[in-house]
Amino acid sequence: MQIEEIIKQIKSLDEAAMNSARARQDMLTKPQGSLGRLEELSIQLAGITANPLPKFENKTVIVMAADHGVTREGVSAYPAEVTPQMVLNFLHGGTAINVLARQANANVVVVDMGVAVEIEDDSGKLIRRRIGAGTANLAQGPAMTREQAEESIQSGIKVALEEISKGADILATGDMGIGNTTSAAAIACALMNELPENIAGRGTGVDDEGLKRKFSTIARALDLNKPNANDALDVLSKVGGFEIGGLAGVILASTANRKPIVVDGFISTAAAMLAVTLAPTARDYMIAAHVSQERGHRLMLEWLELNPLLDLNMRLGEGTGAALAFHLIEASTRILREMATFGEAGVSDK
Amino acid sequence: MQIEEIIKQIKSLDEAAMNSARARQDMLTKPQGSLGRLEELSIQLAGITANPLPKFENKTVIVMAADHGVTREGVSAYPAEVTPQMVLNFLHGGTAINVLARQANANVVVVDMGVAVEIEDDSGKLIRRRIGAGTANLAQGPAMTREQAEESIQSGIKVALEEISKGADILATGDMGIGNTTSAAAIACALMNELPENIAGRGTGVDDEGLKRKFSTIARALDLNKPNANDALDVLSKVGGFEIGGLAGVILASTANRKPIVVDGFISTAAAMLAVTLAPTARDYMIAAHVSQERGHRLMLEWLELNPLLDLNMRLGEGTGAALAFHLIEASTRILREMATFGEAGVSDK
Repeated sequence: MQIEEIIKQIKSLDEAAMNSARARQDMLTKPQGSLGRLEELSIQLAGITANPLPKFENKTVIVMAADHGVTREGVSAYPAEVTPQMVLNFLHGGTAINVLARQANANVVVVDMGVAVEIEDDSGKLIRRRIGAGTANLAQGPAMTREQAEESIQSGIKVALEEISKGADILATGDMGIGNTTSAAAIACALMNELPENIAGRGTGVDDEGLKRKFSTIARALDLNKPNANDALDVLSKVGGFEIGGLAGVILASTANRKPIVVDGFISTAAAMLAVTLAPTARDYMIAAHVSQERGHRLMLEWLELNPLLDLNMRLGEGTGAALAFHLIEASTRILREMATFGEAGVSDK
Repeated sequence: MQIEEIIKQIKSLDEAAMNSARARQDMLTKPQGSLGRLEELSIQLAGITANPLPKFENKTVIVMAADHGVTREGVSAYPAEVTPQMVLNFLHGGTAINVLARQANANVVVVDMGVAVEIEDDSGKLIRRRIGAGTANLAQGPAMTREQAEESIQSGIKVALEEISKGADILATGDMGIGNTTSAAAIACALMNELPENIAGRGTGVDDEGLKRKFSTIARALDLNKPNANDALDVLSKVGGFEIGGLAGVILASTANRKPIVVDGFISTAAAMLAVTLAPTARDYMIAAHVSQERGHRLMLEWLELNPLLDLNMRLGEGTGAALAFHLIEASTRILREMATFGEAGVSDK
């Protein structure tokens, strides 16, 4: 599906469902507002789904993987070969996101958006949407062509639509790609007009020298490629990654289909920023799972006007923060559906 | 069991189990430390249980209810009759803690520690440990006798030991009692030597006038009763509540039996402060579930040197924050048990 078509389908939140959920929260046997963020979340979810009593039975984390030419600049603590190794680890169920998704009763869908090497998948579960064998080095020119940028978003849309057609009623974003914190930071710097020093962090754990190289690499990339902050496709093509474009597509497709989209950490938030640049209303469908330990993440969430649910000093990606947030999301909908009202329980109100 | 006996059983955390858990975290397929608080939590839980791979299968929230004579000072937005009404609501499964405990697969144990009226329990589930028909008005004299203070802690110990003997392997504290934020704030003020203005908040939602009354009520109570900050039983008897003493007992019994104790919000934290005053090592067995919206809660957690897991603007009590924290606790232990190591997954380390 074309990007413009999916954006045209995006509607604003359903006010009637939100009012109904809000009214019910105020009748439940607790002081009004005393469940704080859980109450707000339940109201947002009612607005997203146009259902005053939302319920989610088919949670799906879409983990998109790709490689990044910028790793040649020495910006990561791990070698690029870790990307395909971790994809196999996802497929075999051994990663953190597998563990946390199992706990949350969520599916994990693994997508190769452009890992440098072809992955020999013995599980039959890998979704192949390869845009290329990793991006080009964004410090030496555009990371990808504009056509590839479009294609990555469209592929993300397709993947999400397939999951939604199979029953997914809430989606979350996850990522894997050695080098992708450099790309995500560059996207954020371009869209926010911020300095790399305020956004880029240690990623998987680079040392002080590595962090300096990361700052200067991003500065060079922005200087050389001059991404246009008003044009998400330009930013994505100049300094993005295939998995980041794909996740932006997942976000747009979820939004257009009134499915809540749980945004994970630093990489996912860069994708969310691209999605909001393309379709500002997408913001209302997002739930920011957590604020990552990665330096600029809080500023990026503020730019998106999102308030994260969790702050656990995490910085792994993969969708791990999103999987934890599923528990809070479910809590909010169960409160709305299952608690007794003052009338039902015979409890005196104020 | 006598309080001194249970305190004598308290041991420090098991260093060997903690070292083993820490070493395993560093072998799992993620950058070291990238799961932040989840990693720390898993190591603490290993130390608590003396098990390098802890697992919890029988979560129990102990909700203790009692009434407070201080409600006669007009310090609460709700009438005191709400305490027994809510106890029935707990027993019938309609409250927030029932909903959130069901989600977390946790038991809810409801204890009458001293509700003003006898509760007609048609469920047969209420545990009766009534110390009295509500406390006396702490603004006009001691809330209870020293004997009652001891008895409330001993009753809490008994309740927890019974649950542990039935299989509970992780416990959480919850509370219900109209007026109990005034008592909890007075306890915190006494132990921290703080002004009521820095600790007391709106509780269930008193207006500005009510909040002023709350400040002056606590100030009068401290002035009149002169609780001795070095003597937890004195503080409890002068300005405490039966459910708060009971929860302090639950915390001591959990600690002595190497069971993690998940401390809920404002009221539970006042109980935790009493427990730590009696037995400083108890602090190491506590997991602070969340920071409440109630004014002084963050200061109280700092006094305890505890870092809360969640910050969701909640202020309901009942154990609701603790029930949410169970998901993060389970996540931390599953990560430790279920993730693949670098060696197992064939992933290159740094």
